[in-house]
Amino acid sequence: MTRYKAIIAYDGTDFAGFQIQDNGRTVQEELTRVLLRLNSGLAVKVHGSGRTDSGVHALGQVVHFDLPQVRDAEKLRFALDTQTADDIDVLSVDLMSDDFHSRFNTHSKTYQYRVNTSRAKNPLTRRFSYHFPKIIAFDEMKTAAALLVGRHDFSGFTAAGATVTDKVRTITQVDVVRVKDEIHFVFSGNGFLYKQIRNMVGTLLKIGAGKWRAERISEILLAENRDLAGPTAPAHGLCLMEVRYED
Amino acid sequence: MTRYKAIIAYDGTDFAGFQIQDNGRTVQEELTRVLLRLNSGLAVKVHGSGRTDSGVHALGQVVHFDLPQVRDAEKLRFALDTQTADDIDVLSVDLMSDDFHSRFNTHSKTYQYRVNTSRAKNPLTRRFSYHFPKIIAFDEMKTAAALLVGRHDFSGFTAAGATVTDKVRTITQVDVVRVKDEIHFVFSGNGFLYKQIRNMVGTLLKIGAGKWRAERISEILLAENRDLAGPTAPAHGLCLMEVRYED
Repeated sequence: MTRYKAIIAYDGTDFAGFQIQDNGRTVQEELTRVLLRLNSGLAVKVHGSGRTDSGVHALGQVVHFDLPQVRDAEKLRFALDTQTADDIDVLSVDLMSDDFHSRFNTHSKTYQYRVNTSRAKNPLTRRFSYHFPKIIAFDEMKTAAALLVGRHDFSGFTAAGATVTDKVRTITQVDVVRVKDEIHFVFSGNGFLYKQIRNMVGTLLKIGAGKWRAERISEILLAENRDLAGPTAPAHGLCLMEVRYED
Repeated sequence: MTRYKAIIAYDGTDFAGFQIQDNGRTVQEELTRVLLRLNSGLAVKVHGSGRTDSGVHALGQVVHFDLPQVRDAEKLRFALDTQTADDIDVLSVDLMSDDFHSRFNTHSKTYQYRVNTSRAKNPLTRRFSYHFPKIIAFDEMKTAAALLVGRHDFSGFTAAGATVTDKVRTITQVDVVRVKDEIHFVFSGNGFLYKQIRNMVGTLLKIGAGKWRAERISEILLAENRDLAGPTAPAHGLCLMEVRYED
C-alpha cells in the first residue's frame, strides 16, 4: 500500500462537519465516496487531522489514506479535486512514508476566525465572516487575546459536556488584526478543545464590545468555569487554516 | 416627496440580475417589495444606476427612490437592510435633493473582475472569483490592459446583438493587480456596453495564457469586430464596486 497525504479546503456551509455520521453530509464521507470510485470500488479509509464542526470551513485540513498503487500525485490530486463537489477542493497530494498519520503525528494547528465589524453586512463574505458591528474597545480586546497564549487548563472555554478529561493545551500564538472592514483572530496551538476557539472568540467579542475588561480572560482560565465565558461565536466565522507536522 | 439615495451590495449568485423581469428573482424586485411594505402598501419605484447581469455581484450599486415622508436615514437603512434577504445589504441611505437621479446624473463606475489563478480551486471564493490557473504572461496581460484606457469605439468588445448604436465609451483607468492567489482587474469609466467588461477580461486572459500578444487589443478596437476578441468571461467574477457622481 502507498500512503498519501492531501491538503483539502472546504466551504463548511453545507456540511454537517468533517467526520462521517449517520445523518448529514460530511467532508469525510464525500472524500471516501470519491476514493472508492478511484480505487475500483474497494473501500478506502480517510483519516483527518481532526474534526471540524458543522458549518466550520477549512483552507488547510490534512487527511491521509492508502491506495494499493503508486500513483502520480498531481494526477491523483486533479482526479480528487474534480470529482468532489464544488464545495471541496483538493489543494495538494503527496506520497508519504508509512509512518505518516494525519492525526497521531505531532502537529500544531492554526485557525482563523473572521468578524465583519462594519455597520452593514457584506453579502459577499456573509458565509465566512460573523457580522458583529459593536467593537468599541479593539485595544482592550487585543490585550485580552494575548492572555490566552501559553499552557493553560482551558476548561472554562470548552463545551460543558466535553468527554476529554485533560483540558490542558498550549496556545503558541494569537493574532488580532484589522483587515479592511474585518477583524481576524488567528490562533495557533498544539490542539484545541471542543468549541474552544468559538468560546474564546465569543468572550473576546464581549471585551471588544466594552462589556468586560481584559482580565476576564485570566479569571476564566483560573476558575475553569464555562459560565464565566462569553457565548459561543457562530461556526461560520471559523476556518482551519493550516496543520503543521513536526519534521 | 423626499428623495433617497441608497448604496447597496448583493451576492448576484441567486439573482437573475438587477432589473425586474417577468421570470426570475431580481434585486430591483426585492427592494421594491420591501419598500412597498415600508410605505404602507403604496408602490415605490426603485431606480438603479444601471443593470447588472445575472450572476454579477455589487458592493456599491446605487439606487434612488421617493417616499412621502422625511425619514431618519439610518433608521430607514436599517429597516431596508434587515427586511431584504441575506444576499442583499443596504450599506447607506442619504436624503437627496429632487434633482438627484441615480441613472441620469453624470457618473462613472468602477468594476472589479476577480480571477483565481491557483492550481486548485478555492471553495471560499468560488462564487466570486473565476478559476483560471493558466496565467503565464502576466506582464504582457498588464500591457494589454493599458491599451484599453481612453476613448474608443468598443464594438469589438460588446455582445453582437446589443441595441445601443453609439459604442464609443471612455475608460479612465484599468488596474491589474495580484492579490495573494488572485488577479484583480479593475476598470473605471463613464459607462460600459453590454458584456463589455467580461469580453475585455476574456480577451486579457487569452493574452495572459500566452495565446495572443498585447497588440491584439488594438486590433480588436480598430476592427470593431467581436469575432477577434476572446470568450466572455463568466459572470460570477464580476462585481460593481462603486458609482461616483459629479459634484
